[in-house]
Amino acid sequence: MGGSHILVSALSDMVGAGHVLTEAHDMSPFLTDWRGNFTGAALAVVRPATAAQVAAVVGWAQENSIAVVPQGGNTGLVGGSVPLAIGPPCVVVSTARLRAVRAIDTANRTLTVEAGCTLAAVQALAQEHGLLYPVSLAAEGTAQIGGTLATNAGGVQVLKYGNTRDQVLGVEVVLPDGRIWDGLQGLRKDNTGYDLRHLMIGSEGTLGIITAATLKLVARPRQTLVAWASTPTLAQAIALLGFLLDTVPDRIAAFEVVSDACMQLVKRHLGLAHPLTEALPWNILIEWVDTDAEAPLVERAQALLGQALAEQWLADVVIAQSEAQAAALWHIREHVPEAEKRQGKAVKHDVSLPVSAIAEFVATTDALLQAAFPDALIVNFGHLGDGNLHYNVTGADGATAMAIYNASARINAIVYDSVVRHGGSISAEHGIGQLKRSMVATVKSPAALAMMRSIKQALDPHNLMNPGKLL
Amino acid sequence: MGGSHILVSALSDMVGAGHVLTEAHDMSPFLTDWRGNFTGAALAVVRPATAAQVAAVVGWAQENSIAVVPQGGNTGLVGGSVPLAIGPPCVVVSTARLRAVRAIDTANRTLTVEAGCTLAAVQALAQEHGLLYPVSLAAEGTAQIGGTLATNAGGVQVLKYGNTRDQVLGVEVVLPDGRIWDGLQGLRKDNTGYDLRHLMIGSEGTLGIITAATLKLVARPRQTLVAWASTPTLAQAIALLGFLLDTVPDRIAAFEVVSDACMQLVKRHLGLAHPLTEALPWNILIEWVDTDAEAPLVERAQALLGQALAEQWLADVVIAQSEAQAAALWHIREHVPEAEKRQGKAVKHDVSLPVSAIAEFVATTDALLQAAFPDALIVNFGHLGDGNLHYNVTGADGATAMAIYNASARINAIVYDSVVRHGGSISAEHGIGQLKRSMVATVKSPAALAMMRSIKQALDPHNLMNPGKLL
Repeated sequence: MGGSHILVSALSDMVGAGHVLTEAHDMSPFLTDWRGNFTGAALAVVRPATAAQVAAVVGWAQENSIAVVPQGGNTGLVGGSVPLAIGPPCVVVSTARLRAVRAIDTANRTLTVEAGCTLAAVQALAQEHGLLYPVSLAAEGTAQIGGTLATNAGGVQVLKYGNTRDQVLGVEVVLPDGRIWDGLQGLRKDNTGYDLRHLMIGSEGTLGIITAATLKLVARPRQTLVAWASTPTLAQAIALLGFLLDTVPDRIAAFEVVSDACMQLVKRHLGLAHPLTEALPWNILIEWVDTDAEAPLVERAQALLGQALAEQWLADVVIAQSEAQAAALWHIREHVPEAEKRQGKAVKHDVSLPVSAIAEFVATTDALLQAAFPDALIVNFGHLGDGNLHYNVTGADGATAMAIYNASARINAIVYDSVVRHGGSISAEHGIGQLKRSMVATVKSPAALAMMRSIKQALDPHNLMNPGKLL
Repeated sequence: MGGSHILVSALSDMVGAGHVLTEAHDMSPFLTDWRGNFTGAALAVVRPATAAQVAAVVGWAQENSIAVVPQGGNTGLVGGSVPLAIGPPCVVVSTARLRAVRAIDTANRTLTVEAGCTLAAVQALAQEHGLLYPVSLAAEGTAQIGGTLATNAGGVQVLKYGNTRDQVLGVEVVLPDGRIWDGLQGLRKDNTGYDLRHLMIGSEGTLGIITAATLKLVARPRQTLVAWASTPTLAQAIALLGFLLDTVPDRIAAFEVVSDACMQLVKRHLGLAHPLTEALPWNILIEWVDTDAEAPLVERAQALLGQALAEQWLADVVIAQSEAQAAALWHIREHVPEAEKRQGKAVKHDVSLPVSAIAEFVATTDALLQAAFPDALIVNFGHLGDGNLHYNVTGADGATAMAIYNASARINAIVYDSVVRHGGSISAEHGIGQLKRSMVATVKSPAALAMMRSIKQALDPHNLMNPGKLL
């Protein structure tokens, strides 16, 4: 234990005695991801409070050839923020105490916050200043802003506002050698060299630890309308999407799709009633917004949805008449994962496709899966507006679901092969982490892989930043 | 000339005999930038017709330790696309013949084009399909799409649509070793590794040659309104901007500022009349758009501009009543550079600032310049909505302008020092090239510079891709 004592002493000098955890029960929440799929080992969990402390810890780790696993809210879905089960000696560096708000600049419509602020806290801060931080996702109460940048988080409003990377004007990063790169700035235009910001965003902690960010804020909607529509085919849903993106692209904040299989699960397990009288194969949740309080939003939504009905892009539609009704429609969409969980185990996929390829992808992949697994129940929902489907596979009951789950490898092969053939991505918004690391080599081109490895080698030559993740 | 003969023969085998230029008069248009500020030397100008031919030429250059200078439309403003006057032996690789349209996917709202298509051709192609490619800039008839990506071009609609990088979903790049990286894809969400696309965009040909790109298209406006306003102070102009960005952010395509000094120059040299009866220090051109043909654009614009008048954010405003009037207002804005040119030489700056710092930056920098150069005439105009000013300095007549121009170094020092102190960028949209290369080391942090150099070294270890540019 002499080595451990020296380690604790060195780290405690940097971050304070109470913030170096080495006991198993103290470390345990930091060593397992929230779904419980990945558990790793670490010498210690360190909780610095400032970027300078992060830099000291990382510099010390570099000198001592100890790996660093950055961790935010630990809400990721691919095991990216926990140590490997079998890996090099490492410390977990939690950003939870980096919670300062560095600057609020309402005239510039920017906010500079430290990595440990939760996404919900950032949203609330923006709202306090009459503005909106438009990234929204299920884990927002726990997810930390640094982690959302490291993983380029998506969510339900990407259609209108873009991914997390589109919200970021500047970053501060502790580099693998312990230096701090102050790339914080609040500029909409800056062409002075390689875009290191975009390189860091989505790099999953393998090139450094993001300690702060300057985020763009936007106007908050003054009007919101939520509609629930149904249609017999995905092709019709996509025609409706095209019509809305051609007519009112800036007013459509969300265009979510929910298959009838999902609707049956939310009814069976959660007792949620279908908003429409007839159940059709596809449901669409549309959120329509306007920043202008005087815009004729309801009239135009009614007229355009009426036109879509006449064109048969949708078969039926209901518009929420109150905030409670709107919340109830969102409640159905948001509880698909919970209903799916109650059904049993599922083989989950977070894929994206060109919008033009989605209908064909779903038809082809459904057929391949049903041929190979006649008992498979396909639970398909997601952010159709961005081409992002959560294309999950389970069974008609718990036992069948378990059998399906045990065939994960074969099911993944069918789904990902089909994704690649349709020009899609095997990870739309969740990233690579540990879960999909072995697949990166098969889906990325050799040239892309070689560049990624060269960059990793150049910036982290000893492979000490989050080793075994992404690459 | 034996070596030259071998070179021509080798390159002709790759690209065809007529497409290797070595005579001085043939090469000359490719060796000087369009402003005539930079002239370099090359062994040959090569004009490949396909990505495979580009790859062959680059691979050959690598084997023979010959540098490669990629060139698109050669409309850049910083000498990035012409060879150095004194540099390593090089060939210019023109992308002008790479003009294929690889794919049009209207359902996915994407276009895949080769690098040599002009920006205007891409705009026209989008329009033919009822869509919009929203990058617009003065050189669009000549600028090639590959060059606009390599320099992350800006322009007059960044406020609504973003910079060039925000329009790009995928790229194909010939890497420094002659491999082709096929990173073409049409996905809105893809989190599978480092964002190599954003690394290539804005890298000014120093990491490879972009040979094709998949571009996002958006809905075209069905209504457009152009207004010209005036206001006594920049602070008021910025308050007006904030009001519009809070109320109708998605409807404001351009928010351009033109100082009264510019108005005097366009009147003196081009005879353009002021659109308003009283000349105030600041003029603002607002372009208001809506994709929805039925939206009450005119009514809302009138109401909101009326409110802005009442709040005294603007002093006077005129709304164009016809397309001709709208074009006349844009004509004034677009002819400021021409009027400036007729006035005489000018020390030009393409800077950006946080919107919240602009008024203070202008006041401070104007005062410093006027103190040091009482004869200086400050010609300030630009894209206020993005914080991007073309902050140029000339003189009251040609002789004074020349004296000012001869003091470029001192004037640059005053302006750029002030830019940095106000948190701005010394190159908002034009890039670094040769012109600002020496300044990069002074404005970027050592950590950022070290990362940029590491990446360059990793991807182009022999420094053969556009050497002497950017870094």
